[in-house]
Amino acid sequence: MHAYQFYSAPEKELPGELLVLEDDEFRHCCRVLRKTIGDEIDVFDGKGRRWTARIEAMGKASAECKIIKECAPQPRLKPSLLLGVGILKTNQIDEIVVNATALEASVIAFLPTVHSIKNRINKPRLEKLALTAAKQSGQAYLPQILVLSMAEWLQLNSAVELKLIAEQKGSVTMNQIKNIKTAGQVAVMIGPEGGFDSAEIQQARQAGFIKVNIFPYRLRTELAAVTSLAAIRTLTAN
Amino acid sequence: MHAYQFYSAPEKELPGELLVLEDDEFRHCCRVLRKTIGDEIDVFDGKGRRWTARIEAMGKASAECKIIKECAPQPRLKPSLLLGVGILKTNQIDEIVVNATALEASVIAFLPTVHSIKNRINKPRLEKLALTAAKQSGQAYLPQILVLSMAEWLQLNSAVELKLIAEQKGSVTMNQIKNIKTAGQVAVMIGPEGGFDSAEIQQARQAGFIKVNIFPYRLRTELAAVTSLAAIRTLTAN
Repeated sequence: MHAYQFYSAPEKELPGELLVLEDDEFRHCCRVLRKTIGDEIDVFDGKGRRWTARIEAMGKASAECKIIKECAPQPRLKPSLLLGVGILKTNQIDEIVVNATALEASVIAFLPTVHSIKNRINKPRLEKLALTAAKQSGQAYLPQILVLSMAEWLQLNSAVELKLIAEQKGSVTMNQIKNIKTAGQVAVMIGPEGGFDSAEIQQARQAGFIKVNIFPYRLRTELAAVTSLAAIRTLTAN
Repeated sequence: MHAYQFYSAPEKELPGELLVLEDDEFRHCCRVLRKTIGDEIDVFDGKGRRWTARIEAMGKASAECKIIKECAPQPRLKPSLLLGVGILKTNQIDEIVVNATALEASVIAFLPTVHSIKNRINKPRLEKLALTAAKQSGQAYLPQILVLSMAEWLQLNSAVELKLIAEQKGSVTMNQIKNIKTAGQVAVMIGPEGGFDSAEIQQARQAGFIKVNIFPYRLRTELAAVTSLAAIRTLTAN
């Protein structure tokens, strides 16, 4: 593989083995790095597929590339991780998206909770951050970044085998959870600053979420998010 | 305990059960929160001791407090963690200090390595950040923050039972290390951007550091640091 990977959205894959680079990807590739017709580049689709491709045509805002070789897809890490976090301040959200992408979370859902200070995110901006983080880490998968109500989040996880809610007073620790090593999917909920309120915890518990104590002391939400993902990746590494 | 803890350096403990608040601690307590003579506050010394104390005298830049009650000391988490990181940019160093303090690292050593872009840190500033992080997490221990040459770092760890160096090509993962659960101290080395060079890795290996693979893909140094500390805390939680 070359030093840089470029992203081509799966829906931009054209018939005849053509890929399209647009927007930031086009600018980075053809303006910043001055790649031009005939040059070979590495391309990924954020869903595990990777190619070596050759630039065939360049416009003012996009380039068409012909696939030369499809590389072996990057295997998905197991378990797939679904992270649900109470919405926080922008810089805290950024930190979570960057770190959770690098640790291959498949879903990063922001939840407007009772103690959240806002109820929206700048999704296009976060998707760019995730793309940068994925490229930096050589990660072939991009997370889905969502804003979900509590009901939608619980619905999304209805079939997930292992569901955890971080609670300092949780009675089990991550390494005491028996089926963590066998679960295909793990969902983790992390409260905003001030935590989830008791009704929210109740709702999550009724939906099958288990209280887990990720660390003996209070952790900031951003650190709790990365700590719990790192904990699961550690316990399930092989 | 009250909502805020105030820090009194151990060397400021006076005879007759008096503690002194100075500088930022004094300002926060007596100017921002307007505590005054007769008020009770919680004080900690960054080495595990905690007291309830009463403000007895106030000057322009310090306050004397009389210990009313010594609280049970916060137990030290086991293992104690010594983190050695190649020096990075300021904002990256900040992130490491804040997160490693919250996860109760006892030593955070910055190493001027071949691939480091600078060779010094602003220690007073980092100590303030660590203090804020400790207060936020209800952590009673402050880390030692140091700049050490590679030789000094290896010397510091000479008696440490388990010594790990993060390497993407490491042959073992954290959860495959047998004595991680029994070691009283664990030292972890994380390279700067660009990693340690081969001579540095060689030197660490000769000093007993084991290559460990903390995640299948590349992680930024800051994330690698928090991931490895979180991994050890997870594997050793009980």
